[in-house]
Amino acid sequence: MDERLKKQLDFSLEIDKEKNIFRQTHLSGHGRRENDAEHAWHMAIMAYILREYANEEVDIGKVMLMCLIHDIVEIDAGDTYAYDQVNLKTQKAREDAAKERIFSLLPEDQKEELIGLFDEFEAYQTAESKYAHSLDNLQPLMLNNSNDGGDWKEHGVSADMVYVRQRKTRLGSEKLFEVTDRIIKDHIRKGNLKESSHD
Amino acid sequence: MDERLKKQLDFSLEIDKEKNIFRQTHLSGHGRRENDAEHAWHMAIMAYILREYANEEVDIGKVMLMCLIHDIVEIDAGDTYAYDQVNLKTQKAREDAAKERIFSLLPEDQKEELIGLFDEFEAYQTAESKYAHSLDNLQPLMLNNSNDGGDWKEHGVSADMVYVRQRKTRLGSEKLFEVTDRIIKDHIRKGNLKESSHD
Repeated sequence: MDERLKKQLDFSLEIDKEKNIFRQTHLSGHGRRENDAEHAWHMAIMAYILREYANEEVDIGKVMLMCLIHDIVEIDAGDTYAYDQVNLKTQKAREDAAKERIFSLLPEDQKEELIGLFDEFEAYQTAESKYAHSLDNLQPLMLNNSNDGGDWKEHGVSADMVYVRQRKTRLGSEKLFEVTDRIIKDHIRKGNLKESSHD
Repeated sequence: MDERLKKQLDFSLEIDKEKNIFRQTHLSGHGRRENDAEHAWHMAIMAYILREYANEEVDIGKVMLMCLIHDIVEIDAGDTYAYDQVNLKTQKAREDAAKERIFSLLPEDQKEELIGLFDEFEAYQTAESKYAHSLDNLQPLMLNNSNDGGDWKEHGVSADMVYVRQRKTRLGSEKLFEVTDRIIKDHIRKGNLKESSHD
């Protein structure tokens, strides 16, 4: 087999490991914890279905690919919960090392392309990146909402902490932020979220 | 919330159930069985990485979306193992009913669009469909290859049965069929696959 195809297949097999990286979010129906591959699949479809609500026009194929690959680094770096202040500090260094190792399995041109796309997602600057982040936020919020906010209750997360993350949804989609805001307020009312971490 | 957005979010939540539909394929490293959402995620990334090997030029965004949604009907219809002759007979009827129920959660225009894409995949006629099927075949073959053909051994599958399915890979990609053929021959040699179901 030629070297290029061998590298592409080696990468393809390596990313299978993403299915073993479990997140704090639980599946709907009070199910088990979700893994990164499932999350990425779900986000990519939601990105397509909801694309009319992106603030700016987006290249939807690029958004979907960004969604699909954005957590590959977690194969080495692990999932860092959005409200885990300790591990968030080391997240970037862990993910940079992972990015180099995993994407280096690919031929050089594809390594550069996918690292470029991953970096674009992380930088939060382009229309595609901002919209992809809206889905990265909305997808677990939707599942957690369907489970009576169980993930927040489990970790003692408060509304101000949720807003720090979820307010960025509006950078990608004002409309999806309206949905987000309604869900958060609903859970405050139900007592699933306390308003402030200082309460 | 307006009716259109509500429908889109209802559909988005419904498809979460695809993560509970388990296949006969096992994850690499002799892992647990894979579910449909993970399989679709993996296929879509492989479709992108390996697109230079498609026999015909393809709209890769369309291929990825096709990969992502092609198993949604299994939420109701269940996974039908490629070598399960009994259940293969009822597969179409079960999947047609599921298709109608699940995609009807969407607004009419998106229902029509996604059913169109699903039907296009099933019909095996367009360049995108043929290439997407190549990945639908190669992805589980790759995992099974990494696990010493364990899935075949478990089900007593023979090489002639594997070829019936895998030969179609060449309709989408001659190059990926070469890889497939080499893997099958290797497992015959190792005794993981008997050559014929009549042996």
